[in-house]
Amino acid sequence: MTSLKSIIEENDTQAGRYFDHFIRLLIVVSLISFSIETLPDLNPKSSEILKWIEIICVVLFTIEYLARIYVATSKTKFIFSFYGLVDLLSILPFYLSTGIDLRSLRAFRFLRLFRALKLVRYSSAIIRLKNAFVIAKEEFILFFAMTALLLYFAAVGIYYFENEVQPEVFTSVFTSLWWAVSTLTTVGYGDIYPVTVGGRIFTFFILIIGLGFVSVPAGLISSSLSKAREIEKSNQSNASHD
Amino acid sequence: MTSLKSIIEENDTQAGRYFDHFIRLLIVVSLISFSIETLPDLNPKSSEILKWIEIICVVLFTIEYLARIYVATSKTKFIFSFYGLVDLLSILPFYLSTGIDLRSLRAFRFLRLFRALKLVRYSSAIIRLKNAFVIAKEEFILFFAMTALLLYFAAVGIYYFENEVQPEVFTSVFTSLWWAVSTLTTVGYGDIYPVTVGGRIFTFFILIIGLGFVSVPAGLISSSLSKAREIEKSNQSNASHD
Amino acid sequence: MTSLKSIIEENDTQAGRYFDHFIRLLIVVSLISFSIETLPDLNPKSSEILKWIEIICVVLFTIEYLARIYVATSKTKFIFSFYGLVDLLSILPFYLSTGIDLRSLRAFRFLRLFRALKLVRYSSAIIRLKNAFVIAKEEFILFFAMTALLLYFAAVGIYYFENEVQPEVFTSVFTSLWWAVSTLTTVGYGDIYPVTVGGRIFTFFILIIGLGFVSVPAGLISSSLSKAREIEKSNQSNASHD
Amino acid sequence: MTSLKSIIEENDTQAGRYFDHFIRLLIVVSLISFSIETLPDLNPKSSEILKWIEIICVVLFTIEYLARIYVATSKTKFIFSFYGLVDLLSILPFYLSTGIDLRSLRAFRFLRLFRALKLVRYSSAIIRLKNAFVIAKEEFILFFAMTALLLYFAAVGIYYFENEVQPEVFTSVFTSLWWAVSTLTTVGYGDIYPVTVGGRIFTFFILIIGLGFVSVPAGLISSSLSKAREIEKSNQSNASHD
Repeated sequence: MTSLKSIIEENDTQAGRYFDHFIRLLIVVSLISFSIETLPDLNPKSSEILKWIEIICVVLFTIEYLARIYVATSKTKFIFSFYGLVDLLSILPFYLSTGIDLRSLRAFRFLRLFRALKLVRYSSAIIRLKNAFVIAKEEFILFFAMTALLLYFAAVGIYYFENEVQPEVFTSVFTSLWWAVSTLTTVGYGDIYPVTVGGRIFTFFILIIGLGFVSVPAGLISSSLSKAREIEKSNQSNASHD
Repeated sequence: MTSLKSIIEENDTQAGRYFDHFIRLLIVVSLISFSIETLPDLNPKSSEILKWIEIICVVLFTIEYLARIYVATSKTKFIFSFYGLVDLLSILPFYLSTGIDLRSLRAFRFLRLFRALKLVRYSSAIIRLKNAFVIAKEEFILFFAMTALLLYFAAVGIYYFENEVQPEVFTSVFTSLWWAVSTLTTVGYGDIYPVTVGGRIFTFFILIIGLGFVSVPAGLISSSLSKAREIEKSNQSNASHD
Repeated sequence: MTSLKSIIEENDTQAGRYFDHFIRLLIVVSLISFSIETLPDLNPKSSEILKWIEIICVVLFTIEYLARIYVATSKTKFIFSFYGLVDLLSILPFYLSTGIDLRSLRAFRFLRLFRALKLVRYSSAIIRLKNAFVIAKEEFILFFAMTALLLYFAAVGIYYFENEVQPEVFTSVFTSLWWAVSTLTTVGYGDIYPVTVGGRIFTFFILIIGLGFVSVPAGLISSSLSKAREIEKSNQSNASHD
Repeated sequence: MTSLKSIIEENDTQAGRYFDHFIRLLIVVSLISFSIETLPDLNPKSSEILKWIEIICVVLFTIEYLARIYVATSKTKFIFSFYGLVDLLSILPFYLSTGIDLRSLRAFRFLRLFRALKLVRYSSAIIRLKNAFVIAKEEFILFFAMTALLLYFAAVGIYYFENEVQPEVFTSVFTSLWWAVSTLTTVGYGDIYPVTVGGRIFTFFILIIGLGFVSVPAGLISSSLSKAREIEKSNQSNASHD
């Protein structure tokens, strides 16, 4: 029994690694088959194949889920843990959909994406990223607050400049917020943009100020990541010196 | 009396924190209700509700404003201080608008946004950001000057390349400046772009040179922020060593 | 014989440098003439000239290729090395195309681009970049994995928000993936964008989270490049101290 | 005479500073009036005013130019120096245009922009930027070479994917280069974009690889700027220690 537990929950045996690789492969296969299902002009044969891939995936995920409950030290704790719920959510829509019409089934299927989150479980490099976030936590909060404020300010400003000239484009502060988001992230789809002189000058100043705020968090992540790595290394060398 | 002063102006009592949270909530509610008011197809009932939210907010902000004057050590100093004026500006439009037609009222309402600036008062992390700006002050001025120069150079250059072929798009150096802003910030709405070979080659070189200038300030902020944090820490450790 | 070998394979004689410059020039000439060939309205005379430039380039590249085989210490090893294969691929399409129709010839010509990769051979600064990649290897893998996950999550999310309203734009998860790529890289062509309120709010959150992930690798490269330079310098000073 | 020389060439007297401010103001006025001249619907009265501003500016720049020649230690050296030629070029178009038709005059007027370069003369913070460029010189060359290679590779690749489906959009490798520039800089005007599945997947990989290359130089500038500042400071403290 200890053997099955180590295969499923740990990573240090050959069988454990094979099990992990297999589950990961299954998740990817399941996500790809789900994506293909959304194609509008799918012939019946392909639909049939995808249906069978789906059934196989769900059966295997169910076995995995039951096995995880079986080997868990505290069964209740596992079932109500984050990953326990994710595991359940990734198989539940399939069982629930039997007997219900197709539309609601498609809505439930969205939850299948949570399977992908399982990928997170296998990565250990996340810890460093977490530390990096902790290092610059205050700056992140400050910058997100300032970005939110700036977005709102930009939305109200552009609304007053453009609403009169383009009432069907800048309909309200909410549509203007959409403009603010797509402009300050520099996406610029081109579905909504200022045409008045005042609106363009306002956009200029908002961009000059805003570009700094919006792209600073990315810079903070990379600089605090290298700091987190330094701390890690100095901890390791301290440990080895002892 | 000291008690009321500490509730309004300080943060270290339970009551003071509650007061701060309440005012912040009120600002957010007021901003959201203002945004909803701009929706073009609002039914009369919603308008009525929004009007009452507005009245309640303004009454509460007025009470807050008068209370701040009451507890201020120097009343005149508070009234003419930055936050004193912001507080006044956030309630004044409501009282002024009575008796005046709706159009001018909407213009005045824009000032209501200043309420949001109150959020600034509650954050202490701003000081670090200020220090970061001071560290790289000279570079910021240099880069803003160079960006301004580059924008003007790009505008004049593209005007000569594109004006003859697209006279209705690149009408003048000012419209070309709008192109320069939306291109060098990489927003690229798609409302204005070069079509001639010369204009495109010019755009290529302007982008290769310009991308550096436009995105450097963001890099400067994040690098000087980490420097500001280091200085802060060394000051703290010096203080604790004494 | 040693003389010819040093001219071709090394860089420390006058003749060797001239040979390198000549080959590099030939590659650039060949690439430009190839680009001009793709112009849709080319007069017969220009086509004739381009054909001759092509023939001369291929002949000279063939001579170079045979000479490299001739001077190679192990002929078989050179032929099957990466650069040996690139050299062969850059001349092979020309010889293979004789007798075959034009369409397939154009497809083969794409391989000619590999000539440009020869430029890589001449640069020694690549080593530092390689070291920079090794330093932040784990972070790169983590960020590419997270970006891939985020792109997929964004695609599925926007598909559910937009597919019903714009079924001809957001046709499937694959078209939604194209939207996710063009949005998270902030390119924003404007061929595909959300119009529903839900889709726009979803885009907002995806961009706020995603901008960090997508632009962090660039920051990692520049920070680890400076680290690689420091290591290089300390190695050099250590070597000179010995 | 020494007095006039110090006013024009130096910055350490009250009169010298006033002279500098006046010339800078004149440049800005001249650039703004030039921009206004390009407006398509200008009434005759405005044109008249702008013409007079132009005449006054040119007269004052001419006096400045002659004064600079007068006070120069070596007159020939000044006339053929970079700034001497810029000064001449900024007034020459005006004198040359008399008697020639308006079209050619407009082409010459582009040179007037060189006046703006005079702004450069007054800034001393440029030196630090120069040092920053020297520090990361090799990386800059490497990244510009790699960006150029990547742009060419992207252009050829997308040409093969898109030319058959959109022959009027992706007409040749040169139009594809324009696409590569506007995509890799993330401007994305939306005038040219891939529609085939192959082209979109190719764009995805090009963007994943390319975003790193294109935005690294900006990161290099900001990191080497802070290094340049450190070197400056340590030099200053060394100097003060002596």
